[in-house]
Amino acid sequence: MKKIYNPKKDTWSKLLERPTQTVADIEETVLSVFNEIKTEGDFAVKRYTKKFDKVTLKNILVSQNEIEEASKLISEELKKAIRIAKSNIEKFHAAQKTDKIFVETTNGVSCWQEKRPIQKVGLYIPGGTAPLFSTILMLAVPANLAGCKEIVLCSPPNKEGNIDPAILYTANLCGVTRICKVGGIQAIAAMTFGTESIPQVYKIFGPGNQFVTVAKQLATKFGVAIDMPAGPSELLVVADDTANAAFVASDLLSQAEHGKDSQVILVSTSKELIDTVEKEVEKQLLALPRKEIATAAIANSKLIYVENDQEALEIINEYGPEHFIVCVANEDFYVENIANAGSVFIGNYTPESAGDYASGTNHTLPTNGYAKQYSGVNLDSFMKSMTFQKISEKGIQNIGNAIELMAAAEGLQAHKNAVTLRLESLK
Amino acid sequence: MKKIYNPKKDTWSKLLERPTQTVADIEETVLSVFNEIKTEGDFAVKRYTKKFDKVTLKNILVSQNEIEEASKLISEELKKAIRIAKSNIEKFHAAQKTDKIFVETTNGVSCWQEKRPIQKVGLYIPGGTAPLFSTILMLAVPANLAGCKEIVLCSPPNKEGNIDPAILYTANLCGVTRICKVGGIQAIAAMTFGTESIPQVYKIFGPGNQFVTVAKQLATKFGVAIDMPAGPSELLVVADDTANAAFVASDLLSQAEHGKDSQVILVSTSKELIDTVEKEVEKQLLALPRKEIATAAIANSKLIYVENDQEALEIINEYGPEHFIVCVANEDFYVENIANAGSVFIGNYTPESAGDYASGTNHTLPTNGYAKQYSGVNLDSFMKSMTFQKISEKGIQNIGNAIELMAAAEGLQAHKNAVTLRLESLK
Repeated sequence: MKKIYNPKKDTWSKLLERPTQTVADIEETVLSVFNEIKTEGDFAVKRYTKKFDKVTLKNILVSQNEIEEASKLISEELKKAIRIAKSNIEKFHAAQKTDKIFVETTNGVSCWQEKRPIQKVGLYIPGGTAPLFSTILMLAVPANLAGCKEIVLCSPPNKEGNIDPAILYTANLCGVTRICKVGGIQAIAAMTFGTESIPQVYKIFGPGNQFVTVAKQLATKFGVAIDMPAGPSELLVVADDTANAAFVASDLLSQAEHGKDSQVILVSTSKELIDTVEKEVEKQLLALPRKEIATAAIANSKLIYVENDQEALEIINEYGPEHFIVCVANEDFYVENIANAGSVFIGNYTPESAGDYASGTNHTLPTNGYAKQYSGVNLDSFMKSMTFQKISEKGIQNIGNAIELMAAAEGLQAHKNAVTLRLESLK
Repeated sequence: MKKIYNPKKDTWSKLLERPTQTVADIEETVLSVFNEIKTEGDFAVKRYTKKFDKVTLKNILVSQNEIEEASKLISEELKKAIRIAKSNIEKFHAAQKTDKIFVETTNGVSCWQEKRPIQKVGLYIPGGTAPLFSTILMLAVPANLAGCKEIVLCSPPNKEGNIDPAILYTANLCGVTRICKVGGIQAIAAMTFGTESIPQVYKIFGPGNQFVTVAKQLATKFGVAIDMPAGPSELLVVADDTANAAFVASDLLSQAEHGKDSQVILVSTSKELIDTVEKEVEKQLLALPRKEIATAAIANSKLIYVENDQEALEIINEYGPEHFIVCVANEDFYVENIANAGSVFIGNYTPESAGDYASGTNHTLPTNGYAKQYSGVNLDSFMKSMTFQKISEKGIQNIGNAIELMAAAEGLQAHKNAVTLRLESLK
């Protein structure tokens, strides 16, 4: 890890740069898969599954029988853990439901706002080295609470043409309406256009490799929304001498094991803590099965010493971390003043992995500095807000003249006329 | 207008197609402007303002003196109208403020959600044929209520290098922090990268021509968020024999005058009403100053007869109109069951232009079917939701084991370890 002491403000943007990915060269591949799936449907889905996943699919859809078999392969204790997590995630997301907002802005002019579910959503769950069933909890639970009618899940099959049983068990538990054995670009393309087996959706959620990321970007050109732009996972910890260095090191490493391009940063007003954490990271790293990945990520990472909390806060707001852990004596200062962060973890007993799995908050969060303008996934991500208005005869008489004047000043005579006709009829 | 009777379901997607725009050929122009503004800043902004707007800018920023002079050029009655509109928009958007949501999901596990303002936002206001000062009300009022610190407004200068006084008056009234005389691609590029005069922002709002639309799309590749994808304005009216045909015609025309590519649709269970509205449209059209534009838009537009309300509702939900007017006896059926619409206008005395200017709802709404998955602009558009969690010693003991089991099942040992270390310390 690189140590930086008292960085000057004009060096911050360089210092806080994320490890970058280049994607330009894969855009062409993604576009050609999209074109073929648009015209050939399931046929092209199967062709690309054979090409990319090396498996010949008989059926794209997972059967009820496969779901039942999967359930038998999961230990009772893991099922119980998943149910505990689900219950907490449900409680936290259900509390996010907002009531109808009703305002009579002027006598006779009633306006209200209501949130209604996005009817069809698609969830992408990566396969590969780790079966990320926890992400299903984070996406399908709020989709269900929101009232989405179709919840389609795509996940790549393994060489035997199966999906990991933990994924099937969790998807079924959380009310996914259709599970498809399709991964990568072809999954995103299929949910964008719809095929014989895979329904078209209005919004696609979920993480993925760079092919999936580019495919999700392309999907937006075809009228589909996506949860947020994706980037490698990241964590920033602010800690002082009240922090437990071993805990801090374990949090840094839990983020570092995600991928070689993950980034972890420690900001501290204590040089001693920085040194102790550095030693702890080296020690704990040796014991990790994903040591190689974590070592590469740690090489990208930084230990930054600053003189005081104000300086620390500014640098953190400039970075806008996806995950932000606060382990300091005056935690309120950071909690109150943090302007840009995806999710904030407070105190020595709040590891970032609690939010990844089971505390109740969502783990689909803005990376790459997007915490400056994007929300993490929440109940509203599965809804859209609509407005309604009803104006009485009295109401149009009260605001009609203002509308006429403004429409005329904007040169929009027909807008004015729609009001004038109504006002005339009431004379 | 084309009349269609009882369209079969398999013809809907063709029937409901929007007039399309091609943008591929302007992407290159947009990219080159972006590159030059990124490297040359204000210098390139001025060069492109000279090239595209035919004016040599002395100062990019509007001075306090210009704002004061502008105010003198606005009539008192227009100022009063703008203040009435502002007051209604403020009331409706202030009511959208959500409280902190706090849940103790498990004993000792406290989770909460808070919305915090996006620190820097950019508003784009077109110049051209109509000075759209009403859009400033729709964007700057909620930006201010949200607590955004920097509110930057860009609008193209006229040939004399000035911005329309109604725009300057409204921007100043609504607390815009910086007004820049820059339009088109160069304005979006400047707010994306920042220049000497124009601050970089995190999210860009506002309408524009196809160059602005493509520039906003490109901005998203450089880490800036945008309000929503843009398309031509549109209106769908559902009406029966209880509707006033002249009012319906005036609403259809008020949308049609926006642009030649605007689209208006009437869905009705009454053939008589369809015929009467058609005649009214022809009659009212003759009196409009923007007759040429409205005639072209009306040519794109449709009068659709269906047998019953259920069929009407399905076709409307399939279309997902930006503006949806309901003038029928059983209005509750449509209000309760509409799944996809930007804003809904109910009854004979609720013209769409009320929502455009002064009722209090926002007029920046999803077009092109995006009402299926996007919200119109609202208070939350200027904020992002962040989550927080604080877990006590007791709390981690309650959920720690579930996290360990799930992390191990996902093959993420360091995630597990962050919990194990803490549990061990409490033994």
